[in-house]
Amino acid sequence: MAYNAWFSCINGCPGEFDLREVIYRCPTCGDLLEVQHDVEALKSRSAAAWIQLFDDRYRRNTYPYGSGVWGKKEWVVPFIDNENIVSMYEGNSNLLWADRFGKQLRVEDLWIKQCGNSHTGSFKDLGMTVLVSVVRQMIAGGVLIDAVACASTGDTSAALGAYCAAAGMPAVVLLPKDKVSIAQLVQPLANGALVLSLDTDFDGCMAVVQEITKDKRIYLANSMNSLRIEGQKTVAIEIVQQFDWEVPDWIVIPGGNLGNVHALGQGFVMMRELGLINKLPRIALAQAQRANPLYRSFQEDFKTFEPIVAQPTLATAIQIGNPVSVKRAIRTLQHFNGVVEQATEQELADEAARADRTGMFNCPHTGVALAALRKLVERKVIRSSERVVVISTANGLKFAEQKAAYHMGALEGIKPSHRNKPVELPADPKRVTRAIARHVEKFKLLVSS
Amino acid sequence: MAYNAWFSCINGCPGEFDLREVIYRCPTCGDLLEVQHDVEALKSRSAAAWIQLFDDRYRRNTYPYGSGVWGKKEWVVPFIDNENIVSMYEGNSNLLWADRFGKQLRVEDLWIKQCGNSHTGSFKDLGMTVLVSVVRQMIAGGVLIDAVACASTGDTSAALGAYCAAAGMPAVVLLPKDKVSIAQLVQPLANGALVLSLDTDFDGCMAVVQEITKDKRIYLANSMNSLRIEGQKTVAIEIVQQFDWEVPDWIVIPGGNLGNVHALGQGFVMMRELGLINKLPRIALAQAQRANPLYRSFQEDFKTFEPIVAQPTLATAIQIGNPVSVKRAIRTLQHFNGVVEQATEQELADEAARADRTGMFNCPHTGVALAALRKLVERKVIRSSERVVVISTANGLKFAEQKAAYHMGALEGIKPSHRNKPVELPADPKRVTRAIARHVEKFKLLVSS
Repeated sequence: MAYNAWFSCINGCPGEFDLREVIYRCPTCGDLLEVQHDVEALKSRSAAAWIQLFDDRYRRNTYPYGSGVWGKKEWVVPFIDNENIVSMYEGNSNLLWADRFGKQLRVEDLWIKQCGNSHTGSFKDLGMTVLVSVVRQMIAGGVLIDAVACASTGDTSAALGAYCAAAGMPAVVLLPKDKVSIAQLVQPLANGALVLSLDTDFDGCMAVVQEITKDKRIYLANSMNSLRIEGQKTVAIEIVQQFDWEVPDWIVIPGGNLGNVHALGQGFVMMRELGLINKLPRIALAQAQRANPLYRSFQEDFKTFEPIVAQPTLATAIQIGNPVSVKRAIRTLQHFNGVVEQATEQELADEAARADRTGMFNCPHTGVALAALRKLVERKVIRSSERVVVISTANGLKFAEQKAAYHMGALEGIKPSHRNKPVELPADPKRVTRAIARHVEKFKLLVSS
Repeated sequence: MAYNAWFSCINGCPGEFDLREVIYRCPTCGDLLEVQHDVEALKSRSAAAWIQLFDDRYRRNTYPYGSGVWGKKEWVVPFIDNENIVSMYEGNSNLLWADRFGKQLRVEDLWIKQCGNSHTGSFKDLGMTVLVSVVRQMIAGGVLIDAVACASTGDTSAALGAYCAAAGMPAVVLLPKDKVSIAQLVQPLANGALVLSLDTDFDGCMAVVQEITKDKRIYLANSMNSLRIEGQKTVAIEIVQQFDWEVPDWIVIPGGNLGNVHALGQGFVMMRELGLINKLPRIALAQAQRANPLYRSFQEDFKTFEPIVAQPTLATAIQIGNPVSVKRAIRTLQHFNGVVEQATEQELADEAARADRTGMFNCPHTGVALAALRKLVERKVIRSSERVVVISTANGLKFAEQKAAYHMGALEGIKPSHRNKPVELPADPKRVTRAIARHVEKFKLLVSS
């Protein structure tokens, strides 16, 4: 059976475009495109047969099917040749049972999808493997592409750098000069990307990348390129698979540009269309209060949406006031009976620290999601008996300085309620033993409270 | 069938000790202990049946067997109750096919075992899940243990912190004051460990931790505790499993305290004893030239071993002059027809950078292993046709500053032959396009050379 997929306009304008075509927006209305699958063809295989196929491939050794993304190849990009796939075994990240944290929250069936435990340390790998593989397929098919480019200050540039390096393909990253930390720079630099530090702000970089990618030989890797959604949607399929094909009650996910929540929704919708599941979870979208345009819109039942100017937040990757995927995200939330909650800087920092105390080490965006979860549980929107999955988008090791600053009390405007500081002592075993005894007593009180 | 395991002296002194006993050294000779398994009992199950069992559990959902360590539970700690296991789905890390890097080295069947793509970002998770789980089992059995303690400046303290946090158990980390970077401090602090900053050096911390753990209520987590070996040895089993039970020709592994190479050897020996494999790989142990006591001993065919004073190296975790597991390591290398190779600071830094250019992002210890591999290939000790696996011990995100310093040319004494610097430009699309064109030309030359 030949499966197929193509681009079409998210607003339903006429036209189907080949995924190997260099096109990012609808030629009719200028809005975003999305990937459509030939669902009728996919239905020729039964739900049970799809489950069997996906389970047989799961984390196994036959390249590239052990990857969480390419194990679902027919649902992602069916036509791609395996030798053009650039995979680093992305996906299938740990669905961590948050035993102690869940007990503290009184949500005992709580799970954290650790997407940051991955090749480049973020969930962006899921989408980038698809984009870079399709570019390789295009080049193999004779399309002239010189380089793949993005504007990004963080995870996107890291993923683009790594996948292009593995493919032997030039990557270009556009950054605002003097506004990017060394920790954010180092991955694309190390992976050999051309890193252009432009004398402008982030919006200026976005404008330039859109301008230069009018030349079709420079391919655009920013999230308006819908190929990435096809990879990211596998996170939904993977979560259900990790629960032996049971759908959780809630998914909590942080949102900035909002492509992620749309991708999540696409994964669930596709599973339901093809009969693998018969219910949908509810989705809670979490925003930083300083970058909360969707939260504001939700307060008005999504009747209107107003872009805002986002304020600086510790959750740097979701500091976005005018999200590119807002239309698709609102549709997703309406379809999934969703809610939007927000978290202040204090709340997100404290909640990340609380989670760390139970053995995690997440990024601040996960802190936003966990803080939103706490509020939703307190308001009884999410019930204690429900099964909840929180999407953790990146590895805490990318934010080591921020975490250290929290514990040192050096984050401006944040009172670190859960701080833990080193204790200085002479190298005297007796003094050390006494310090441990005091800690053990305090710990007992903490655990029992 | 009841499987069993116990401690006995590595020198063969009489005595078997319960793994739930608080004991770290042989009461007769004072040397290290090792875990012995009841191999006859394990032989009651056929090799084919073990393979079937391990494959059935691999990355599946039944707790705790999806873990790379606990999927081999009978070979690790057979008696432990599943409810006492503290697992965060460790192990089963990516065995990355190093396609482009291997082609450059002319070793096309080259694989990197990405142990740093794990819960706390290093291979230490494999051993720590075992140690913390046994402590929980001991406490459940009525043994009074107040806290688990280690001296460590890096990965061990991170793993101890995380697993104790998940277990709800006090962890204590002893560090030399003013000698530990924030990046090394932040994981145990965030996980709520008591971090004691002592007015001494690292050896002083080791002396204090050994003194205070004479009180059996403070359990010792340093690598002289052989329980950790039982978890770490699963990396050998996992590699073979990921090759569909084929044994590679070579394993390259960095070595400092040398417990790791012993653990690797134990895994292979056990597989051969139980009939799952019928050959052993050769092992290449890689040391930093500035901390190379085993390399020196290898030059004399291991006839003697002299501890040295290790000099500062970028590969901080293997800056050890008097390795605690040297005796076990030499036995392992002799049994596996092993070799020892070394790498200078320049070599390890450049080799890590070369690997990054092909899409990896490894720690400096992996750089040591890769540089040693290059030398062994050049000397034709390792042949181009052989299948080689390099053990990558930790996530490069723990060394972001060091990697950035390399590319900025800020590492003292290192000439960064593979550096990549940001290029500053005005936000002018024409200038950007020209910079990309130049990069594409250079890249073509680089790839074709």
